[in-house]
Amino acid sequence: MTTITTLEVFDVRFPTSRLLDGSDAMNPDPDYSAAYAVLGTDGGTADGQALDGHALAFTIGRGNDVQVAAIRAMAGHVVGVDVDELAADLGGFARRLVRDSQFRWLGPEKGIAHMAVGAIVNAAWDLAARRAGVPLWRFLAAMSPREIVDVVDFRHISDALSPDEALDLLTAMAPTRAARMAELEAVGYPAYTTGAGWLGYDDAKLERLAAEAVAQGYCQIKLKVGADLATDQRRLRIARSAIGEHTGLAIDANQIWDVDEAIQWVNALAHHDLAWIEEPTNPDDVLGHARIRRAVAPVPVATGEHMHNRVMAKQFLQAGALDVLQIDAARVGGVNENVAMLLLAAKFGVRVCPHAGGVGLCEMVQHLSLFDFVSVSGSMEGRMIEHVDHLHEHFVDPVTVVNGRYRVPAGHGLNARMHPATIERHLFPDGAEWRNT
Amino acid sequence: MTTITTLEVFDVRFPTSRLLDGSDAMNPDPDYSAAYAVLGTDGGTADGQALDGHALAFTIGRGNDVQVAAIRAMAGHVVGVDVDELAADLGGFARRLVRDSQFRWLGPEKGIAHMAVGAIVNAAWDLAARRAGVPLWRFLAAMSPREIVDVVDFRHISDALSPDEALDLLTAMAPTRAARMAELEAVGYPAYTTGAGWLGYDDAKLERLAAEAVAQGYCQIKLKVGADLATDQRRLRIARSAIGEHTGLAIDANQIWDVDEAIQWVNALAHHDLAWIEEPTNPDDVLGHARIRRAVAPVPVATGEHMHNRVMAKQFLQAGALDVLQIDAARVGGVNENVAMLLLAAKFGVRVCPHAGGVGLCEMVQHLSLFDFVSVSGSMEGRMIEHVDHLHEHFVDPVTVVNGRYRVPAGHGLNARMHPATIERHLFPDGAEWRNT
Repeated sequence: MTTITTLEVFDVRFPTSRLLDGSDAMNPDPDYSAAYAVLGTDGGTADGQALDGHALAFTIGRGNDVQVAAIRAMAGHVVGVDVDELAADLGGFARRLVRDSQFRWLGPEKGIAHMAVGAIVNAAWDLAARRAGVPLWRFLAAMSPREIVDVVDFRHISDALSPDEALDLLTAMAPTRAARMAELEAVGYPAYTTGAGWLGYDDAKLERLAAEAVAQGYCQIKLKVGADLATDQRRLRIARSAIGEHTGLAIDANQIWDVDEAIQWVNALAHHDLAWIEEPTNPDDVLGHARIRRAVAPVPVATGEHMHNRVMAKQFLQAGALDVLQIDAARVGGVNENVAMLLLAAKFGVRVCPHAGGVGLCEMVQHLSLFDFVSVSGSMEGRMIEHVDHLHEHFVDPVTVVNGRYRVPAGHGLNARMHPATIERHLFPDGAEWRNT
Repeated sequence: MTTITTLEVFDVRFPTSRLLDGSDAMNPDPDYSAAYAVLGTDGGTADGQALDGHALAFTIGRGNDVQVAAIRAMAGHVVGVDVDELAADLGGFARRLVRDSQFRWLGPEKGIAHMAVGAIVNAAWDLAARRAGVPLWRFLAAMSPREIVDVVDFRHISDALSPDEALDLLTAMAPTRAARMAELEAVGYPAYTTGAGWLGYDDAKLERLAAEAVAQGYCQIKLKVGADLATDQRRLRIARSAIGEHTGLAIDANQIWDVDEAIQWVNALAHHDLAWIEEPTNPDDVLGHARIRRAVAPVPVATGEHMHNRVMAKQFLQAGALDVLQIDAARVGGVNENVAMLLLAAKFGVRVCPHAGGVGLCEMVQHLSLFDFVSVSGSMEGRMIEHVDHLHEHFVDPVTVVNGRYRVPAGHGLNARMHPATIERHLFPDGAEWRNT
């Protein structure tokens, strides 16, 4: 018998604001950070390593200490848990965390409290997949339709997707899963890059990075917009000129606009042949996004990195408020809730292009897209995972993007594991990176 | 010159779960708690007391320590602030907190992070009203229409309510404000009680308390429902029999149902002549509430205690998803955002019946209803403030409810100030109330 014996949580921050990496209209100076959780056990893996589970909640600086405190507050739900029972019922485990009624009040199912649940749940999946000796996407892909349905919490979404509907959907995909797994191993999964388009980069850097993105094989680049219309027009001209006609050009406003302003601004930029407009307004605004989508068509509307739970995903889909659902590995209640969102998207026929970047988000979310292709949607059409090429060196098993495509990860688990030296150096406020600032 | 010199935050918890006070279908054993914030200054009031500002975020137990940490994380925005500048620009102050881009990522504008903003903002209003030597509702009622508009953040709600519309609305009410203030002083504001209907109370206690509520002059009582339909039928029969035909009988499901289940359950109970169904499903579900409202009409739908910001309020109103908006003093970004929600409700012609109870929620929210009557809606028709008669003894200036009506508060500020002995005794985990548990 193996038991979870410890929950350790670390406040890890990277001083990204010093170089304006990650700068956008809403977030001028983020310091990409991780509330990093480790579930320790008294057991080992088949290949003789200590068995543990790692995951993180992503923040952009101030308040990361609060996120750490929230994850620590969940310790009573994990320390002492039997690992065999955990691995056999990852659905029940996640529901117990989500439904802790006292803790739930702090959301409910949103914000810091829910991201804390997500970090713990994701660490539990990492633990389970490492115990099985496979990467998470293979662990998920090996689950039967019934097992997948059992990990989903259908509370408050059953009016849009019932367990039976989900089961039918998964069952229909099951016979062809092996072929799609082989396809993924052969060709990987499409990526697009945001690295060229941060608002803090000057025109020359934008032009150079945009051209490089095409040379590197990315199918799409993305630019941050929304600070100034004339600037956006100029930057989009530069970018389009650098990438040519055959590479996608998406824009991202990071919630800066009100609804009417979004409509006017996007329509003023639409002649640049936009792949999508991302986060045109407040991420809670289902009705606002629906209105924007109707008014800026055919420019697709994308959102999701701040979509705080499956109930919001349900409504965005019911209302026809988006064309692209951008799930985030660390915003919602972990793998379980993201599986629910993948199933909802499949039911409504909407493509999923995950949000990534930040710290470790590419590493974690790739598993969800791979699983989606294998077991849920069965499609890569119009789908791609965001890729930002920084901070990957801090991870033990970083993502591999070759010719603009994610290669399937070969390690075990969720790929969120950081190098111990990274954690030590970037601990806030006492690590070497922060001590003298 | 007076400056904010300190921010102190206390983890105060009351062991309410021992008596099943506050028990409902979703929250079986809450320990009502406060993340209690005090802004200290180096100045004094006109009557020679230390000038400070008190407010709290309400939670139901576990995680109150995380809420405390979140409020403490805002210290950089308040310590060192000039009190004259603060009082002259409470709108700008609140917007700076809400728009701290790094901290905002943790919501955005929802959950623990946003409730932390709310606690600080409310403490600032308490400070400003105490400095002026008046209760908060009078402080608000004395502000000009332009000053009120300036405290509201119209970001992401301007498609439903523009600053000019708000100004017109407030200006139209201004000439008659004095008459309504006199009316409030004479007759107070209607209250309803939830004290009879907690799910953990047996039938005899329910019957006794329901009859007492009528004798005490309450216009409405409220029962918790949703655990078992037969039990609900029995309890509603007992309650209706005890209160007669002329007292309102509302029910509250505390989010326990899915959308279709809510419709069936409420329709099965509708013959009890229901004043409203409260929180029939997930509080994020705008479209679900709209569907429920259409399907259970004429039973009114009420929600709001977990409505996390003005963008959600906007959508519930735009979608016709509620009949009664139940603002909460401590859930959103403080007085400023609640003023925005009052203005939105007035624009859409929806009545506001605040959520209260908990710890100090009655004390704080009464000011918002009084202000609404004086300056915004000008109406008490169908409006009432929730009242739960417990834990008030811990406050220096508790609410006064006489013959089922709130008397206007006479003290200075927000009325959230607890007795020092209460704080000391209920500090978690080291206060006397908790030390030996």
